[in-house]
Amino acid sequence: MKCSRCKKLACVTLPSHHSGFCAECYPLFFTRQVETAIRREKMFTHEERILVALSGGKDSLSLMLELAAQGYDVTGLHIDLGIPGSSPSARVKVEAFCSSHGLKLEVLEMEKEGLPIPDIKAYVNRPVCSVCGRIKRHHFNRIAMEGGYDALATGHNLDDEVARLFANTLRWDTAYLSDQGPTLPAREGFVRKVKPLFRLSEFETANYAFLKGIEIHSAACPYASGASFTSHKELWGELEHRSPGQKFQFYQGFLKKGKPAFAAREAEVGEPLAPCVECASPTSAGTCSVCRIKETVRANKAAALAAEG
Amino acid sequence: MKCSRCKKLACVTLPSHHSGFCAECYPLFFTRQVETAIRREKMFTHEERILVALSGGKDSLSLMLELAAQGYDVTGLHIDLGIPGSSPSARVKVEAFCSSHGLKLEVLEMEKEGLPIPDIKAYVNRPVCSVCGRIKRHHFNRIAMEGGYDALATGHNLDDEVARLFANTLRWDTAYLSDQGPTLPAREGFVRKVKPLFRLSEFETANYAFLKGIEIHSAACPYASGASFTSHKELWGELEHRSPGQKFQFYQGFLKKGKPAFAAREAEVGEPLAPCVECASPTSAGTCSVCRIKETVRANKAAALAAEG
Repeated sequence: MKCSRCKKLACVTLPSHHSGFCAECYPLFFTRQVETAIRREKMFTHEERILVALSGGKDSLSLMLELAAQGYDVTGLHIDLGIPGSSPSARVKVEAFCSSHGLKLEVLEMEKEGLPIPDIKAYVNRPVCSVCGRIKRHHFNRIAMEGGYDALATGHNLDDEVARLFANTLRWDTAYLSDQGPTLPAREGFVRKVKPLFRLSEFETANYAFLKGIEIHSAACPYASGASFTSHKELWGELEHRSPGQKFQFYQGFLKKGKPAFAAREAEVGEPLAPCVECASPTSAGTCSVCRIKETVRANKAAALAAEG
Repeated sequence: MKCSRCKKLACVTLPSHHSGFCAECYPLFFTRQVETAIRREKMFTHEERILVALSGGKDSLSLMLELAAQGYDVTGLHIDLGIPGSSPSARVKVEAFCSSHGLKLEVLEMEKEGLPIPDIKAYVNRPVCSVCGRIKRHHFNRIAMEGGYDALATGHNLDDEVARLFANTLRWDTAYLSDQGPTLPAREGFVRKVKPLFRLSEFETANYAFLKGIEIHSAACPYASGASFTSHKELWGELEHRSPGQKFQFYQGFLKKGKPAFAAREAEVGEPLAPCVECASPTSAGTCSVCRIKETVRANKAAALAAEG
C-alpha cells in the first residue's frame, strides 16, 4: 500500500480510515485526529492551562508530547502509586521524558497521602484495580482544582473508551452511561475532563509513540488481573476486524444518540453532591469514598500491626 | 449432575440457572419459564384469542404446543413464502404438526398475495432477508387484526432477542431500541405482539422440541446469508460461556433501564402513523413499505418479461 499523503511506501495501514501512511506522514495523521477531537468536542483553547495525567505508558506520554507540540500550556502530573517493582520504574520514565522535552511535571506520592496501593491490596477487601482507579481520579481532580487548571487531560484511547462503554452498556448502567464522553464539562467541585486521544486506537497511539521514539513504561501492573476489560477488548478486536470502523461508529453513535437519552433520564433520578466533610471533594455521601478508604486502611493496618506485636 | 427437581441423573445442565434436569422434569422447567414470561410481561389471558406465527422451526412449534398445553386459545398462522425446495417442506411439517395435535391452523400463500419471495429476490434490489422479514411482519399483523385476535405470539427466543438488541445497540438505533421487548402493547392499527419464549435460550427450546418429539423444519433458508446476526450470536455464545447468565442480564437490564430512556427520547421525536392508502395498514409514509415493494415487484417483473419476449 502507498502512503495516502505522499505516495511513498506506507508503513502503517488503517482499514477503518481506508488509508495508510509512511513513517514521515503518519504523525501528521495523528496530529490531525487530536486537533479534530479538541475542536469538535470543545476540549480547551491555547489560552487555558491543562493538567495532563501521566502514567508513563504510551498513551499519556504521546498525549503530552503532542499537546506540547501543538503549543498548548501543559503540565504533567504523575502519581507515584508506591507499588514495589513497578512504580519506581514508571516514575523514572515520566521524569526522564519530561526533563528531556523540557515539560513541566508534578509528582504526587501516594505513600505521603496515606494511600500506597500495596496497603489497599493488603487492608481493603475490594478489587484493588477499582479502588486504585478511584483514588487516582480523586487526586487528579483535587490537584487540578487546587492548581486552578482549566482542564484535566487523560490518555484514554478509542479502545479504552469502547471497552468501558461496552461494559457499562452490558449492565445498562445509566448513571455511568450518562457521564461517559470525550469531554465532561466542569461542575461544582469537578474540573473539566478531556480525552484528546479518543478518536485514535491503541494501535494508532502505539505507532505514534514508536515513531516519535518515546521511551515508555510498558510493564503491566503486577496487581492487574486483566479479566473482563481485557476480554472485551479482544471481542471488539474481532468486531473491528470483521467490520473496520465499527468501534468508532459505536462510540460516536453513543455520543449522538445513546448518551442524550441516558442524560435526560439521569437528570430525573441523579443524586445531589456536597463537599466531603474530610477533604471537601464533592460526594453524595457525607464523607467521600477515598476518605473512607483511607480510614479503612489506617484502622485495618493498625489492627494488623497490633495483632503481630 | 443430578436433576434439580427429582435428583435422578440430569440430561440437561443449565449453568445460567445453576441447575440441571432429567428428561421427565425438563419440560416442567420450560413450562415454568413460559408461565413466568406470560405473567410478568402481561402477555395475554386464558380469555383471549392468540394467533401464533408458525414457521415450522423448533421455536414456533414448541411455543404452539406449550401454549395449547397451558390451555390458551391458540390458532397457528403459517406463511407459505413460495421458495422452491424450502417452503413446501416447511408447510408440510406445520400442517402435520397441527393436524396431529388437533390445533387450528391458517395458511397464507405469498404467491396469492403477489409477493412470492423468489420474485423479491429477482426484482427488488434490496437484501432479501430484510424485505422478507418486513413482508412477514406486515401479514402477521394484518391477519391478526382482520381476525380480531387479541395478540400475535412469535417464537423469538433469548438468543434472537439478544442478537437483535445487540445489533440495535451497536447502531444506537433509538427508534428500534424504544420498541423492542417481550410485549409490545396494541396501538392504532397494530395488534399486541408477544414473545413467550424470550426467557429461554435457543438450546433450551431445542431441548424441549427434542424431548417432546416435535418434527421440525430445520433446514436453513436457501436465501439466508448468515452474516452479522449469526456472528453476533457466536460472540454472545462466548460472553455467555465466560459468564453464564450474561445474556439474560443484558436483556433484562435493557428492559428495566435502557428501554425507558429510549422510549422517553423517542416520544419526543417519533413520527405519527396513518393508514396506508392501498391496504390500510399503519404507515408513516402514505403508501406502506409492503405495498411499495409489491408495486416494485409487479413493475420490474413486467419489464423483465417484456424485455424477454
